[in-house]
Amino acid sequence: MKVDKTRLEFLKKDAVQGFTRTIGLVPVSLNPGKFVTRVKLVRRLCQQDGFAHAGLIAAMADHTAGYASYSLISEANRILTVEFKVSYLKPASGDFLECKAWVIKPGRQILFTEAEVYSIKGTVKTLIAKAMHTMASVPREKIGAKKA
Amino acid sequence: MKVDKTRLEFLKKDAVQGFTRTIGLVPVSLNPGKFVTRVKLVRRLCQQDGFAHAGLIAAMADHTAGYASYSLISEANRILTVEFKVSYLKPASGDFLECKAWVIKPGRQILFTEAEVYSIKGTVKTLIAKAMHTMASVPREKIGAKKA
Amino acid sequence: MKVDKTRLEFLKKDAVQGFTRTIGLVPVSLNPGKFVTRVKLVRRLCQQDGFAHAGLIAAMADHTAGYASYSLISEANRILTVEFKVSYLKPASGDFLECKAWVIKPGRQILFTEAEVYSIKGTVKTLIAKAMHTMASVPREKIGAKKA
Amino acid sequence: MKVDKTRLEFLKKDAVQGFTRTIGLVPVSLNPGKFVTRVKLVRRLCQQDGFAHAGLIAAMADHTAGYASYSLISEANRILTVEFKVSYLKPASGDFLECKAWVIKPGRQILFTEAEVYSIKGTVKTLIAKAMHTMASVPREKIGAKKA
Repeated sequence: MKVDKTRLEFLKKDAVQGFTRTIGLVPVSLNPGKFVTRVKLVRRLCQQDGFAHAGLIAAMADHTAGYASYSLISEANRILTVEFKVSYLKPASGDFLECKAWVIKPGRQILFTEAEVYSIKGTVKTLIAKAMHTMASVPREKIGAKKA
Repeated sequence: MKVDKTRLEFLKKDAVQGFTRTIGLVPVSLNPGKFVTRVKLVRRLCQQDGFAHAGLIAAMADHTAGYASYSLISEANRILTVEFKVSYLKPASGDFLECKAWVIKPGRQILFTEAEVYSIKGTVKTLIAKAMHTMASVPREKIGAKKA
Repeated sequence: MKVDKTRLEFLKKDAVQGFTRTIGLVPVSLNPGKFVTRVKLVRRLCQQDGFAHAGLIAAMADHTAGYASYSLISEANRILTVEFKVSYLKPASGDFLECKAWVIKPGRQILFTEAEVYSIKGTVKTLIAKAMHTMASVPREKIGAKKA
Repeated sequence: MKVDKTRLEFLKKDAVQGFTRTIGLVPVSLNPGKFVTRVKLVRRLCQQDGFAHAGLIAAMADHTAGYASYSLISEANRILTVEFKVSYLKPASGDFLECKAWVIKPGRQILFTEAEVYSIKGTVKTLIAKAMHTMASVPREKIGAKKA
């Protein structure tokens, strides 16, 4: 499927609103089926011991995988997360989190994605979490969503 | 294992800081191995179509299950999420989200938990997500955490 | 949805063929959206340390959840597993494994299920694994399946 | 960690017994942290529509990831599956299934692994499932296992 540059630019902006604005998500690059994002690791995103909150990491992976999926579907459709699983390889701290997500199996109704989350401290990049998602592509009207 | 009332009160307060303060998590009740929390569903916690963000729901379930686990372990230890899986039964909107999490198998090093997330709109309560987690109980010193 | 008794009887028999015959799966009871099965725990189903193989437990949970789903869908459709997650609460031994699976959220295209697996030794029944699945209900023709 | 050639040869043989003999698992190659296996896709391993049973695929991925983990731990320890998640990208048929599993994060107590399962039909190889596992390395005595 050919993906329009204007569409990619639109989605990259669209990815930041509501909850992702709250967590300070920054889109880095969006290519068909592949999205990279960053989050500055500040205290208000951490858990009780000063590590990045598992929930933040999960949210980042989910959203990055969601918009990676978005880039492959019809504009008439929206993406909803069906389910995901995330494994935390080590406690995460550092300056930034970076998430790379990609579609491993596209589909008209169901897309499967993976995401890796890295912590970045100076020049050191460490894989700290890995996730797998099932995404649903649903007609906009079906969920009462406005055109976007 | 007997759990001290003072300990439960401490954990209930401790549960809200950093990221959980950011998402407005409100502890409802904490009993040994069982925790209930709420989040007011405001725009800044939602995704692009106005539903509760999947990442928010995951974070809520993770944290509620984490502190349900906390109530069963030694004060010398801390809880870290090893991994979890969450299924989204339907798109969530409403006034509040409520999460109920419980330990299904305690253990000295590994605890297994489940969590259900409900949307609450007026008097209607709907199950919108279900999660299963693996939690690790690790000695405080091992992760360099301060006494709490 | 009303489920015909004849249909339930058919599905209960249909559940044992190919791989499930190989593992000696025995249907215990099938009700709309709920299936119970058993497997006799013999050496050829165990792993290197004499416990029930994790793969056997996963297979049993998957199949039991699959036919629990089958009982709720149109006869024109078939069930395929989209994905699942299973947690092993403790190593399993004993005389039998018993699996109880149920649909937690039916749907026209997607069904969510849960399954619990118990080991049974004499009169002692122990929960040893828990699983969550996403099932797809797909038109028979779409996967080239014969009428059943 | 250096892994002895004799140890690898032992594990490659040890991998086939009980349940894995029942499903006809064939070890292809075992290197430190990486295992490849095959299964001939015969009728008695399939489900009702003639596809490879989801449970078979899960079992194969679990076992291959388990012995990939085995190759990295102390001989005094055994591997038990803590949990896993598997996604089915498409219905699987063909002559063989091939599974490739690798450790993505080793550890003294917990190892994280991934596995890919391919169907092979003549010269065509198709990715049909992907799994992520959490494995526990436990002292032999703790689970009452004999020396191996």
